Amino acid sequence: MTPVHQPPTLPAAVDRATGSPTMQEAILRLQEFWASRGALVMQPFNTEVGAGTANPATSLRVLGPEPWQVAYVEPSVRPDDARYGENPNRLQTHTQYQVILKPAPDNPQEIYLESLEALGIDTRAHDIRFIEDNWASPALGAWGLGWEVWLDGLEITQFTYFQQAGGLVLDPIAVEITYGLERILMALENVRHFSQIQYNDTVTYGEVFAQAEYEMSRYYLDDADVELNHRLFQLYADEAQRMLDRSLPVPAYSYVLKCSHTFNVLDARGAISTTERARSFGLMRRLTRAVSELWVARREELGFPLGQWTPPAPATAAALPEVTGAQPLLIEIGVEELPHVDVRRATESVRAAVEEQLAATSLEHGAVAVKATPRRIVVTVEDVAQAEADTTLTVRGPRATAAYGDDGEPTKALLGFLRGQGKTPEDVTRVDADGVEYVAVERFVPGRTSPSIVAGLADAAVRSLHAERNMRWGDPELSYSRPVRWLVVLLGTTHVPVAVSALVSGTSTRVLRSADEPVVEVSDARGFGELLAGAGIVLDRDERRQRVVSAATELAASVGGTVDVDGESDLVDEITDIVEDPRAILGSFEQRFLDLPPQILRTVMRKHQRYLPVVGDDGRMLPHFITFANGPHDTDLVRAGNESVIRARYEDAAFFWRADLEVSPEEFRSRLGALTFEERLGSFDDRVNRIADLAQTFTAAYGLDDKDAETVRRAAALGKFDLASQMVVELSSLAGTMAQEYAVRAGESPAVAQALAEMEMPRSSASGEPRSVPGAVLSLADRFDLLTSMYAVGSVPTGTSDPFGVRRTALGLVRVLRGFPMLSAVSVRDGVRAAADRLARQGIETGAEVQEAAVDFVRQRYEQQLSEAGHLHSVVRAVLPAADRPARADELVAVLSESLAEEGARSIVAALQRSMRILPAGVAVEEGGSLPDTAEPAERELESIVVAIEEAMAGHEGDVERLFSVGGALPAAAERFFDEIRVMHDDPAVKASRLGLLARVAALGGREVDWLAL
Amino acid sequence: MTPVHQPPTLPAAVDRATGSPTMQEAILRLQEFWASRGALVMQPFNTEVGAGTANPATSLRVLGPEPWQVAYVEPSVRPDDARYGENPNRLQTHTQYQVILKPAPDNPQEIYLESLEALGIDTRAHDIRFIEDNWASPALGAWGLGWEVWLDGLEITQFTYFQQAGGLVLDPIAVEITYGLERILMALENVRHFSQIQYNDTVTYGEVFAQAEYEMSRYYLDDADVELNHRLFQLYADEAQRMLDRSLPVPAYSYVLKCSHTFNVLDARGAISTTERARSFGLMRRLTRAVSELWVARREELGFPLGQWTPPAPATAAALPEVTGAQPLLIEIGVEELPHVDVRRATESVRAAVEEQLAATSLEHGAVAVKATPRRIVVTVEDVAQAEADTTLTVRGPRATAAYGDDGEPTKALLGFLRGQGKTPEDVTRVDADGVEYVAVERFVPGRTSPSIVAGLADAAVRSLHAERNMRWGDPELSYSRPVRWLVVLLGTTHVPVAVSALVSGTSTRVLRSADEPVVEVSDARGFGELLAGAGIVLDRDERRQRVVSAATELAASVGGTVDVDGESDLVDEITDIVEDPRAILGSFEQRFLDLPPQILRTVMRKHQRYLPVVGDDGRMLPHFITFANGPHDTDLVRAGNESVIRARYEDAAFFWRADLEVSPEEFRSRLGALTFEERLGSFDDRVNRIADLAQTFTAAYGLDDKDAETVRRAAALGKFDLASQMVVELSSLAGTMAQEYAVRAGESPAVAQALAEMEMPRSSASGEPRSVPGAVLSLADRFDLLTSMYAVGSVPTGTSDPFGVRRTALGLVRVLRGFPMLSAVSVRDGVRAAADRLARQGIETGAEVQEAAVDFVRQRYEQQLSEAGHLHSVVRAVLPAADRPARADELVAVLSESLAEEGARSIVAALQRSMRILPAGVAVEEGGSLPDTAEPAERELESIVVAIEEAMAGHEGDVERLFSVGGALPAAAERFFDEIRVMHDDPAVKASRLGLLARVAALGGREVDWLAL
Repeated sequence: MTPVHQPPTLPAAVDRATGSPTMQEAILRLQEFWASRGALVMQPFNTEVGAGTANPATSLRVLGPEPWQVAYVEPSVRPDDARYGENPNRLQTHTQYQVILKPAPDNPQEIYLESLEALGIDTRAHDIRFIEDNWASPALGAWGLGWEVWLDGLEITQFTYFQQAGGLVLDPIAVEITYGLERILMALENVRHFSQIQYNDTVTYGEVFAQAEYEMSRYYLDDADVELNHRLFQLYADEAQRMLDRSLPVPAYSYVLKCSHTFNVLDARGAISTTERARSFGLMRRLTRAVSELWVARREELGFPLGQWTPPAPATAAALPEVTGAQPLLIEIGVEELPHVDVRRATESVRAAVEEQLAATSLEHGAVAVKATPRRIVVTVEDVAQAEADTTLTVRGPRATAAYGDDGEPTKALLGFLRGQGKTPEDVTRVDADGVEYVAVERFVPGRTSPSIVAGLADAAVRSLHAERNMRWGDPELSYSRPVRWLVVLLGTTHVPVAVSALVSGTSTRVLRSADEPVVEVSDARGFGELLAGAGIVLDRDERRQRVVSAATELAASVGGTVDVDGESDLVDEITDIVEDPRAILGSFEQRFLDLPPQILRTVMRKHQRYLPVVGDDGRMLPHFITFANGPHDTDLVRAGNESVIRARYEDAAFFWRADLEVSPEEFRSRLGALTFEERLGSFDDRVNRIADLAQTFTAAYGLDDKDAETVRRAAALGKFDLASQMVVELSSLAGTMAQEYAVRAGESPAVAQALAEMEMPRSSASGEPRSVPGAVLSLADRFDLLTSMYAVGSVPTGTSDPFGVRRTALGLVRVLRGFPMLSAVSVRDGVRAAADRLARQGIETGAEVQEAAVDFVRQRYEQQLSEAGHLHSVVRAVLPAADRPARADELVAVLSESLAEEGARSIVAALQRSMRILPAGVAVEEGGSLPDTAEPAERELESIVVAIEEAMAGHEGDVERLFSVGGALPAAAERFFDEIRVMHDDPAVKASRLGLLARVAALGGREVDWLAL
Repeated sequence: MTPVHQPPTLPAAVDRATGSPTMQEAILRLQEFWASRGALVMQPFNTEVGAGTANPATSLRVLGPEPWQVAYVEPSVRPDDARYGENPNRLQTHTQYQVILKPAPDNPQEIYLESLEALGIDTRAHDIRFIEDNWASPALGAWGLGWEVWLDGLEITQFTYFQQAGGLVLDPIAVEITYGLERILMALENVRHFSQIQYNDTVTYGEVFAQAEYEMSRYYLDDADVELNHRLFQLYADEAQRMLDRSLPVPAYSYVLKCSHTFNVLDARGAISTTERARSFGLMRRLTRAVSELWVARREELGFPLGQWTPPAPATAAALPEVTGAQPLLIEIGVEELPHVDVRRATESVRAAVEEQLAATSLEHGAVAVKATPRRIVVTVEDVAQAEADTTLTVRGPRATAAYGDDGEPTKALLGFLRGQGKTPEDVTRVDADGVEYVAVERFVPGRTSPSIVAGLADAAVRSLHAERNMRWGDPELSYSRPVRWLVVLLGTTHVPVAVSALVSGTSTRVLRSADEPVVEVSDARGFGELLAGAGIVLDRDERRQRVVSAATELAASVGGTVDVDGESDLVDEITDIVEDPRAILGSFEQRFLDLPPQILRTVMRKHQRYLPVVGDDGRMLPHFITFANGPHDTDLVRAGNESVIRARYEDAAFFWRADLEVSPEEFRSRLGALTFEERLGSFDDRVNRIADLAQTFTAAYGLDDKDAETVRRAAALGKFDLASQMVVELSSLAGTMAQEYAVRAGESPAVAQALAEMEMPRSSASGEPRSVPGAVLSLADRFDLLTSMYAVGSVPTGTSDPFGVRRTALGLVRVLRGFPMLSAVSVRDGVRAAADRLARQGIETGAEVQEAAVDFVRQRYEQQLSEAGHLHSVVRAVLPAADRPARADELVAVLSESLAEEGARSIVAALQRSMRILPAGVAVEEGGSLPDTAEPAERELESIVVAIEEAMAGHEGDVERLFSVGGALPAAAERFFDEIRVMHDDPAVKASRLGLLARVAALGGREVDWLAL
């Protein structure tokens, strides 16, 4: 908080882009545009809302069957975005422009792009992209799929197909388009702080709003009375419920909105306790759902005054054409921009569908290829025969004896059969089946023509599309990751009419939206690849990826740098699947930002922008990045745009960096109580306290030296403090990283800082692990607490659901334990038990069975790791008894894997196994005293060998490696024993003595290895 | 309340006017228009407000020196206008379009008219008028002067020059323009219910908003939880104060707005008690003031980011021209539309100023005329001489003896004198003064030229303008009822440059705004009247009035009716002074509305519309009205517009009428407790209870018969119940009238109904009085209570301030008392005392002196009435001792006035006076026993005459009329007595006896008349 409000120091003025609209011009242009498209132009809501979505003109109107097209400005209040007007990009009230199109039209993206043109944006010169970004508000029982729209890398719009709202499934689906006006205007006007936007020709945004930004920030962050707002929240909720009881959804909803805003105020003040947050969300969710149901009921009572939408009927395809000769097949399924993961997934599912269909026919055909970009899945099949071969079917009729009467005339049975087959008595032949004679006729079955088969193929291909999250868009039957918008089916030059639900095939494809002619006629299946290539579209994924890699490498080299293609391979994959026509652009940013920790710079590039960092010879970052536009554009313009975006993001980061540095780690740490971890498990404060106690317990168990112990203690005391920092709130993947950076700058020792970072490691299967012992100790304490507490509250990972990352946690636990053999003093079981004991102090009980399940879950992860590392299954199974201490198990794996390559060791193992197999399972074998006098020489020899080995192993019992080195005499002695001696002697004493000897042999193997598994 | 919401039955559809904009088009056009004029286009506020004024973009931004031009839509929430969407013209949320221009430009009206053109309104075809309508919100410490703008009689806009806001005087002044969009759209689209407005091309207003109208009406009128809203009010106020304490005016103000809305909710729910209303208003006023002061302070701290307005400097006039010969003078002062009362007032003040100025010169000139319309005050002076006559001044110098030295040479003294006078020794003459000789020179003083004098004249004329309520508009010195916009000063064809403050004279006048050329050059003072006449402007008021009367009469006759020109003379006067070019239009309304009581119909016409009613031969209203447009227009269009307006208003009235009839008088009466009368005096329930008790007291004192007594009792029990009716809330002047109408229909007796109406009489000096005794009794009780209670709380009328109408009340009291001599049993003093006693029961004390002041105030009113009726001052003064019973005093006035015309009575009066003058003032004179034996004949004779008169007067003591008839012998006897007898005899006994005799003479005059005043 700034004690006395002074306007922030603004960045140096830059030349305002000429001809760009002012804020109010932009709004007017949008109002006019959407009015011209038939939308109702309405007003912002008259109580505070966090987004245009909350305005009942969206949230209630998307419900039910009434059509509704609306557009309006919505000043959206986000108390926790309050920054006193100082942050260049963040405001407590920002201005959304909200559009709802219900039912969703067939071409909402195209209409949207026209609106950008209306705003004065040249959509061909700029790089405009639809990047996957889904939306869900569990608190509102609402979700939808869609995109963030990028203008030269800048997110300017949220574009969502609403699927559900107020807990109700939407029908029809509504498209929501939400423009972020300040961002758009900053980009159009080329200014660096929102205050510098021209609001109109004479006044800037800051001149109009800066004081309110400051004062409302003060209110939200510092001055709002907490007790009073708590009371308001409850009063609003009460009134909402009362209005629901009286069947008045409109006033009820306005009070739900007031609840929500008040909650946000309290949250920004850091005044929402754990239990209150959960309770409040539940309350608001229930109220919203009740409002929604009531609203729909009231609309129905009123007879749906705005009419009722009826979904389109499935289409009927035209008659199939005739095709002559073998022809190449082209099926193109056109979609709105797919999420990158769906490009590969769609390729596979369509390929499978096509192959399955083809396999079920006898149609001859050549090579099948399936390729995809974010906007199309293209199937090509070479040389598709004109038709299947014709076949003749023999159709069996009645028994011959029943086919003709005594007079030799056809019986009624035969005549009926013939009538059914369209045959005459002259056509009758006879067949024998299992020795019985039947009459029969032969029927000619012509092969299906290729159009008929292809139609089925296309149908199956479209219907095979299925993503992890699917949506509807207005088609009566289809659902998919994004809407399917067109279908091209050609056999050579012949269009094959196909109707899949309401989707009807045609002969038009769509190329880049920015093309002169975005819709192109396809006259021939041949050369379709060339047609796309001519439009700049690289259909082949490998080729696209190669282009991305080579262009990036080349551009990086132009500034003396490189791109870490392997290290960034996930990102390269993603880039490959979000463009059809990758055009690399080298951008730069100001040198000064290199003062920020490189992790910040990389994270911002990667997460927000999909930019590839450029690295110099010394491995340090260069002030450059590489981005990829989709298709041709004005490179300078797009570069400048992207440079502005990264600058703004780095400004943000630098702002957070500076702001965070003004807060001590202790202060941050003290704020963790306000951050809920999990409803039953409490806040992050609770969690870090548990971790610290566990770390203490483990420190004692490990017997760490004083220095390490102190490092653990201190780091644990500050644990996860950076979760309260602005940087981590913004970029959660920097948790730990920022703790280290901030701790060092706050004067903590490097060891403590490192431990704070390592506590969060490993983040994922591919990322780094702790290197220091204190870091490892904290990492373990962290993971034991998470694992055990999740089992304690039943939040166990299932097939696809693992919200708290328990699987990842267990894998991490194993990795750390494997990486730090010196920390084997605490086994997995020990760790879980210690964590359970600590949870019990917080009143959370974890039963023995539950603990065991957690331990077992870790064991399975370890087993999985070993398997994935290529170890022999037998070896893996053999070491599982030691899996409770994975580092130890690792040693066993190494020894076993190495030793078993040698004959000697294998023989020892065989001897052990043979001994063990004879020993009765589950029966306690008296461990032998010495042999009786009646013992035979083979017994005596084996005993002496065993005694010698036991002596050699003394103090190293169970040490497999030693066993292999000192046990060389065992196999021969054992072999002689088994050859000469009948263990199961009739005399129980003799038998016991012999079993006892074998038990001593078996005991040489120790308890850590399941020798029989080998 | 409608238990289940069903859409209201809408009026039959009418043809929508072609080409008219939809609601959203209208908004877009206004946004574009005002944006093009440099206004910031902003958004509605995000908490409920009752008007665009409350949005901080108005209420805070008008404060301080920063310029601010803004325009925005404001959905304005008025809970007590909620009507479930049923009333065609009234909504709980209506849509204002708000514009603020700060500083006020020179031509805001013209800009506004252009905005109407932008809306698609042909401002020449329609009749557009600026009708006085001032605005004040004591709760906000805000007021301004301005107009309501009429479009064919429909109020479509409030147009205000803000003078004060938040308790702070504004500098610069801001113009506020508030468009009522629903009204404008209903007019433009020619629909009869707001639901029928096209919101856009496909959806109506009702389809969008009807459900919310219904549900929010339910909330505001029926379902809002009272206790909860009371709590919210207090919480909001607390938070506002807390933010003030932290110097944050922006959040503080948002909580003041929440307070205000919550108050309105409670008020609509009828849940505001008397004390709470006063307390709440006080609280909100204080908070608003504190916010305003803090806002200005913060803006100053921030250095007034939007700049600081500086007022224009007073102008300097160009050099005066030369004028040859006598010329006619024209001074035209152009103003924005004056309130009608100011037209006549301005005429008088300008005339006085001009005449005073002319009188102070020796300039010869002809006839002076001053005429005025709402837009101009025109001074013409015929034959203004070229200049004043030249004069010669003799300037005395030193004594002759000191002027020349012994050598005869001029002394230094003389030379100094001559130098000062610019003369030489040759110019010296001599003059004698009181016998002393001085040197002197003669100085020629040329007469001032006419331009020089005229310039002073024009200055004085402009500065003489002063209204009861004056405003500033941006001129550094001038203030007036409305802005002065132009000044023409011509002497013949010569322009005389004059600068009055920042106003500079020119030669352009402005004619009707709808003229083809609204600005016209004036080349010659001669023929200016013709120039205006040519533009349709009737400058002469008498002529304008005559035109109004004759046109109205003629149009009324065309439908077989008449206009009550005399009865409506106030309205005719008003019409005369709100138009420059009166154009009568005859309009009609539906026959069915004649079912409403005619007072309603007339009141609506008169108060809201300034329409003249048309009356048939039988004195009953005809379904017609006459209105006057200003200047030429499309008559059919304007007629249709006005007909729509009156129809809508009658629909409203009919709606209220029907709604009110569903509520019993008792029920209405029970609601008076919710209506505050005055903070300390309580609610109207308290007041009516006091009146009822007083009426009971008076009834006993008067000894009314049972029937009248019962009428008084019943009427008093229901007293003022109609104040709670919708009709009276809407049309307060119908108070009493509606009580009568509703009472009759509720089955009350005609006498009770009449008494309820008469209780409110007389309303003003010109209106009717009670006719029935019960009505008079209630009228008196009402007025005694009001008078006394206002004196009790110190709300005594001062020069211009008399908010509760105490002066009118006292005048009414006197009129009723004079009208009902049979009610003289209760004197004014008795009445005040009774009222004071009753107030005491409510804990309100009224001291004796205060009571006496109230009585005296009434006496003064009576005295004033007598004087104004033309009675001799002496007679008026003589009867004042009886003024406590005005009816009795009236009798005395009559007797005295009549009798004093006769010599006999005058002699009797003289005898009485002579006796009285001799009697020592303040000395108790022994009333005589009989005369002593030593008495002289003159004494004896007088005594015998006195005895005879006393005997004749027995039982009629003090009866002046009788005295005059029986006292004929007194003058002669008295004359002899005074001739012959020395009253002040040295012998005290003799003296006492003689004085005693004179005292008996004086006593004949009784105590009711102040004989010495005659």
